[in-house]
Amino acid sequence: MKIVIIGGVAGGASAAARARRLSEEAEIIVLERGPHPSFANCGLPYYVGGEIASRDKLLVAPVAMLRQRHRLDVRVRSEVTQIDRDNQTVSVHDLDSGKTYIESYDKLIIATGASPFRPPIPGIESSRIMELRDLGDADRMHEAATARAKQAVIVGAGFIGIEVAENLVRRGMHVTIVELADQILPPWDREMAMPIEAHLRKHGVDIRLNESVQAFEETEHGLTVQLQSGETLSADFAVVSIGVRPESQLAADAGIKCGERGGIRTNAQMQTNDPNVYAVGDVCQVSCFVSKATVQIPLAGPANRQGRIAADHIFGRMSAYRGTQSSAVVGAFEMTAAMTGLSEKLLNRAALNYEKVYIHPSDHAGYYPGATQMTLKLLFDPQDGAILGAQCVGTNGVDKRIDVLAIAIQAGMTVYDLEEVELCYAPQYGHAKDPINMAGFVASGVLRGDQPIVHLDTLHPSTRDEPFLLDVRTEQEFAAGHIPGATNIPLETLRERTGELPVDKKIVAYCQVGQRGYMATRILIQRGYEAANLSGGYRLWSNSMIDRAD
Amino acid sequence: MKIVIIGGVAGGASAAARARRLSEEAEIIVLERGPHPSFANCGLPYYVGGEIASRDKLLVAPVAMLRQRHRLDVRVRSEVTQIDRDNQTVSVHDLDSGKTYIESYDKLIIATGASPFRPPIPGIESSRIMELRDLGDADRMHEAATARAKQAVIVGAGFIGIEVAENLVRRGMHVTIVELADQILPPWDREMAMPIEAHLRKHGVDIRLNESVQAFEETEHGLTVQLQSGETLSADFAVVSIGVRPESQLAADAGIKCGERGGIRTNAQMQTNDPNVYAVGDVCQVSCFVSKATVQIPLAGPANRQGRIAADHIFGRMSAYRGTQSSAVVGAFEMTAAMTGLSEKLLNRAALNYEKVYIHPSDHAGYYPGATQMTLKLLFDPQDGAILGAQCVGTNGVDKRIDVLAIAIQAGMTVYDLEEVELCYAPQYGHAKDPINMAGFVASGVLRGDQPIVHLDTLHPSTRDEPFLLDVRTEQEFAAGHIPGATNIPLETLRERTGELPVDKKIVAYCQVGQRGYMATRILIQRGYEAANLSGGYRLWSNSMIDRAD
Repeated sequence: MKIVIIGGVAGGASAAARARRLSEEAEIIVLERGPHPSFANCGLPYYVGGEIASRDKLLVAPVAMLRQRHRLDVRVRSEVTQIDRDNQTVSVHDLDSGKTYIESYDKLIIATGASPFRPPIPGIESSRIMELRDLGDADRMHEAATARAKQAVIVGAGFIGIEVAENLVRRGMHVTIVELADQILPPWDREMAMPIEAHLRKHGVDIRLNESVQAFEETEHGLTVQLQSGETLSADFAVVSIGVRPESQLAADAGIKCGERGGIRTNAQMQTNDPNVYAVGDVCQVSCFVSKATVQIPLAGPANRQGRIAADHIFGRMSAYRGTQSSAVVGAFEMTAAMTGLSEKLLNRAALNYEKVYIHPSDHAGYYPGATQMTLKLLFDPQDGAILGAQCVGTNGVDKRIDVLAIAIQAGMTVYDLEEVELCYAPQYGHAKDPINMAGFVASGVLRGDQPIVHLDTLHPSTRDEPFLLDVRTEQEFAAGHIPGATNIPLETLRERTGELPVDKKIVAYCQVGQRGYMATRILIQRGYEAANLSGGYRLWSNSMIDRAD
Repeated sequence: MKIVIIGGVAGGASAAARARRLSEEAEIIVLERGPHPSFANCGLPYYVGGEIASRDKLLVAPVAMLRQRHRLDVRVRSEVTQIDRDNQTVSVHDLDSGKTYIESYDKLIIATGASPFRPPIPGIESSRIMELRDLGDADRMHEAATARAKQAVIVGAGFIGIEVAENLVRRGMHVTIVELADQILPPWDREMAMPIEAHLRKHGVDIRLNESVQAFEETEHGLTVQLQSGETLSADFAVVSIGVRPESQLAADAGIKCGERGGIRTNAQMQTNDPNVYAVGDVCQVSCFVSKATVQIPLAGPANRQGRIAADHIFGRMSAYRGTQSSAVVGAFEMTAAMTGLSEKLLNRAALNYEKVYIHPSDHAGYYPGATQMTLKLLFDPQDGAILGAQCVGTNGVDKRIDVLAIAIQAGMTVYDLEEVELCYAPQYGHAKDPINMAGFVASGVLRGDQPIVHLDTLHPSTRDEPFLLDVRTEQEFAAGHIPGATNIPLETLRERTGELPVDKKIVAYCQVGQRGYMATRILIQRGYEAANLSGGYRLWSNSMIDRAD
């Protein structure tokens, strides 16, 4: 068995190592265009920022180790220029010698990844405009930030844009992010991205939303960046991080079928339309675990698993890829945002039915020092309660809750199950009623009709059907800020003061995070009012009101 | 509907609050023997240690709040002395007035908890011997540690013993723990408790295993503690934390059925043999979620859920308790140990069939600063791969992995599922192949026969069948320490040096954590050797070899 793997980073390296474990006899050739196989691409921004001080640390599986330990024939600076499926060969261009040679295969694994998209903006070809895909890119950015550089413009506020922004700020630079959408982290729901946006602003990152770059122009010592709005920014360099495109041209040229958005199509064993050719990682399209729709989601975890599955199948094992769940996490200074499954935005796009709840628990018991508040959004099926997605933003314990919910989605659990799950508890780690349980309680209460809720985005006041907005917090809390138009009746006195409520209007109760609002809703419903709780409470409302003036 | 609840802490308080949310009309009386309902009992050790500086923080739901917000008739210092099921009344002794009165109920919820077991040791009645159950106990201990106290003896190395030890050390005291078992955390597997034991010793805690107290004797300024071994310790005070007993006498006296170990028997709706009487929390026996055996496990999370379920059932809702999974976590200085499901010890006791694997991953990508190593033990069914239990010990990310596995157990997942789960990843939070995936890979490899393993506890050398022990680490690693009798052939040279291996013996390969040992096993099996990997590697072996000399 002779296996040729094109691309030696996440998916390709995993496939190679797995293949070797399954077969000592197989000839395994890894053709990597760059100078390093299996480098830590997710660590690149932190190398730029100096958090990872040593470049060598990024070389997680050096060539020598892959050769000696795994007996892999790793060839770096080796670019495959053509796939000949009829003859089962690839043409390899040795970038050092300049020569091209033919290599045959029994099985071919394409793991060419995805490349940063460069928009056709005038001036984009400048050497001062960077991207961050490989070590060479990181080296260039590291060096550019070392010099007398003061200002950087980042185009695109996705994961990489945010991570690069944080790290350039760490290097002492002033950073402006230009983002076309009306929020950072565009695949996320806006209200869940806003706390991270506010936090980045707090750390001095200048964020321009609903904005794009019209042109770059090189100056003597840098760049000018011409924005759509008419403004011009100066920068020492710019970073373009507006998304990636599967590097599937090589495959497509060989008749390997790709999807509409360019990703290679495979079955669950990662086989393409040619049974001798597999594709793994960011070059592939995948099915969404939740919606079953075809998607392209570049993530390291799925790439590694796909590599393993392809190797399994080559050696007759029927492991199968279950689809990508979009579990992801991003840090921004002290804060963390994580998600799994579908966002509300994607549920809407897919025209799927859903309900949502928001809670704002602390990461651990409030009486133990250091507790920090998070916001957790849970999306679920209003019919059967199946969990469809979750997003969480906060300081501590965010990744833990999203990992737990990722498993719950994987297992097909419902919000009713979340009420019952037993997580480990001590006051410095969580709650006897963990945020996961609380999300289950709230969502189940909504589905059972115990806790009707309304959402901020349906609260736009209109002349008709305008609800009576009831703030059940204390007078002090109300005085410190409330939703315009709200009337304050603290929960503790509500039972005595229901006479002050209109009988012909729906009552929408709210408190700070939702708990007292829930209690108020229970009191009012049992007294015959049409009442609902404002999910997410005043905190979610005020999250959406962050000052973007600076 | 008139509901009387005996006990106002975790389970009782949850039942009361839930009942109120379900019914504004119900009369809800909470009878609490102590001066405070709903205090943070899990926080008591940290109040003693000063980590929680303010005692008020422990009063998570003060009486005034329960009365005003939830309209609960909370009566503190009110001890129920008798239950009259025929007349549906309880006798209440008002500890302040000294008077006793009768209170009727439609539904009664017993949430009396469990009390620390005081062994019949001579001198145990001394006021210098403390336990830690309520705020009064914490106050006494806090005060005792304030004075010129220098030394404390803790009897019992369970969760509370360890937490109290840490906190008394924080207060500057010298602490000796006396434990009857041959390990701390007796319900855990010994090798998983040993890193915590070593860490406690490192922080100066003197741990005496296989040891017990024969007698306490008061001295002018303290105590002498006479040990079974003959040694005598001096102490300013002692803390007894050798377990708890359900406070079920009141219930038993009224004909409520209890199990062999004293816990009240209930159905899944927490109903006792009297349909008008419920029992929740530590006073109950429960079924183990994994083995279905009847057990008594005092935990805050289950107590809260049971309280909720009892209230649900009173108001006609059929929620059901699914059993206790034993998810728990304990901190000891910088370290954390957490578990869920059954330990190996309990699996053996239940005569259940199991297999186990150990891995030693870092909590996040090794190339990102601050990564710390953990040891994760996964127990699973050798037939179908169902996850039976997990234990984890380390510095960071321990509670996260156990919570994820707790959900996996709850969902009935197998080790094959763990291979596929998609968790969120960025280098400061985890791995593209998370420890959860890695545990799944290793366990599945064992079940598929790809990776035969042997365990340390089966390695006792005998004259016959003694395996050939092969250390595949580097020469440097081998020189720094290895398992006695092992031969060193580094993995990188193994393929060329198989001639040095005996052909008539089973080969047991090991490395530091298990990964190279696995690779070596794959190489040898494919070359026709009978080979197996030593699960947990040299690290697990050396964990078991900690120096107890001090």
